[in-house]
Amino acid sequence: MAIIESVPNISEGVRTDVVARIADALRAVPGLRVLDVQSDGTHNRSVLTLAGDAGGLRQAIPMLVSMTMEAVDLRTHRGEHPRLGAVDVVPFIPIEGATMADCVALARDVGKDVAERLGVPVYLYEEAAQRPDRRNLEDIRRGEFEGLAEKMATPGWAPDFGPSQPHPSAGATVIGARMPLIAYNINLATNRLDVAKKIATAVRMSSGGLRFVKAMGLSLEDRGTVQVSMNLTNYEKTPIFRVFDLVQREAARYGVNVLESEIVGLIPQAALLHAAEYYLQLEGFSAKQVLENKLRE
Amino acid sequence: MAIIESVPNISEGVRTDVVARIADALRAVPGLRVLDVQSDGTHNRSVLTLAGDAGGLRQAIPMLVSMTMEAVDLRTHRGEHPRLGAVDVVPFIPIEGATMADCVALARDVGKDVAERLGVPVYLYEEAAQRPDRRNLEDIRRGEFEGLAEKMATPGWAPDFGPSQPHPSAGATVIGARMPLIAYNINLATNRLDVAKKIATAVRMSSGGLRFVKAMGLSLEDRGTVQVSMNLTNYEKTPIFRVFDLVQREAARYGVNVLESEIVGLIPQAALLHAAEYYLQLEGFSAKQVLENKLRE
Repeated sequence: MAIIESVPNISEGVRTDVVARIADALRAVPGLRVLDVQSDGTHNRSVLTLAGDAGGLRQAIPMLVSMTMEAVDLRTHRGEHPRLGAVDVVPFIPIEGATMADCVALARDVGKDVAERLGVPVYLYEEAAQRPDRRNLEDIRRGEFEGLAEKMATPGWAPDFGPSQPHPSAGATVIGARMPLIAYNINLATNRLDVAKKIATAVRMSSGGLRFVKAMGLSLEDRGTVQVSMNLTNYEKTPIFRVFDLVQREAARYGVNVLESEIVGLIPQAALLHAAEYYLQLEGFSAKQVLENKLRE
Repeated sequence: MAIIESVPNISEGVRTDVVARIADALRAVPGLRVLDVQSDGTHNRSVLTLAGDAGGLRQAIPMLVSMTMEAVDLRTHRGEHPRLGAVDVVPFIPIEGATMADCVALARDVGKDVAERLGVPVYLYEEAAQRPDRRNLEDIRRGEFEGLAEKMATPGWAPDFGPSQPHPSAGATVIGARMPLIAYNINLATNRLDVAKKIATAVRMSSGGLRFVKAMGLSLEDRGTVQVSMNLTNYEKTPIFRVFDLVQREAARYGVNVLESEIVGLIPQAALLHAAEYYLQLEGFSAKQVLENKLRE
């Protein structure tokens, strides 16, 4: 059976009872699992990690939008994280037995349904975008809820589905499809922040580095070391081992060693199998040779 | 639910209808899966790969022994592979949610059951062995079926369970518990067989190398290269990445590069995750961070 992940971000991170009620309702949806719920009070935002088949998600997301709309009014919402809607962003992510095309189709189906039934304008982003200038979430969200009415009135910012004005209390929702994102940090055996920042500049796409890497250098004050903190946005095209090797190489140019690396949160099995294949120079290997995968065929 | 693998080797590799009938009967056992069946006519031997919970295997193995005994008579059996019994050897292997202790207990339960109900002497080997000189399968099998009556009459070779003479047509069966075995080959960018043999000597336990490595050097005539062909018998204690690095290092001493490596058949997920962790210098990583594993919790 196909498994698709969805990670809706909702604009409520303080009233955890509201978030728990929504998560409980989602748990009752057949074919759906709630893997994780993280609420951040400062951001006033929660991130839910769901997994299921297309049918389960098609039922779950409109329910999540409807329940969040009843509980959240953006006119009085304050929080540090930028947001456009009560349900701010809903990505669909192919995990197993589902393609990116399946996730794009699902994003468009769900987007249309949410817009028509709940009266919320919907923008499609990343792989589900219907115009190149809507691929990037930050571009769609710029101006936030407070600037949304003005933005929607300017040429080129009619939503992909739904009304041409913001929903009064729920703003707009951004729905799309993307690859799994890997949060990957490499700690350096030095306290020189300039080195971490130079390496981040070298490896990230925005300043000339690898296509699917976002990176910044930061200090780990309590440990006396520095970190290259990264998001890998397409592990198939920019694999984790190439990022590691490049960071190690750039660090050597400053006489610095890699201390360790860390994966924050979840990672697709394939990303680590690819690393093992690369370093062990495995030829002709298939994930079907992994015993646990064979057991679940 | 716990998953245990079992890889019974039976002394029939020519009459594939017999083997297919046994496999079909196993497929009907609740809680059991038949993952693979390989028959070798020259060896006149078949290897079945089964996976299931302890209950499924406790039902399946005596059935497999009984059906094989009805079909195979070792007094007329010929084949190149050494064998002691109609069902020659049955290892139990911990895969997921099961410990080695669980597999040892299962081996002893099944061994006792087979001996008592079917009248076949049973020897316990590897981790299930009750005496150190029965850990090694080759020591138990030495002399084969033809020498078994004489061997059983000598001091120290009474079976762990069952009668003190061979079963007339089915000999004896060796049952035990062991770690998953990884068949791992490394091909060298040279045609110098002496280099492959020297590396095999360096890395294998029997001549001073790593504890859980069996290795030999051989020529791949059709490809014009040589291979270090290995069995890794405990990937937790002698991990695959350490074997790869050592072979690479030894090859360099002869000015030879590693061309590629290959995994033959199945490999536990953990063996490859450990390799990724090692080369990426991952700290604090857990297999629970693999998305697919999380989905199946």
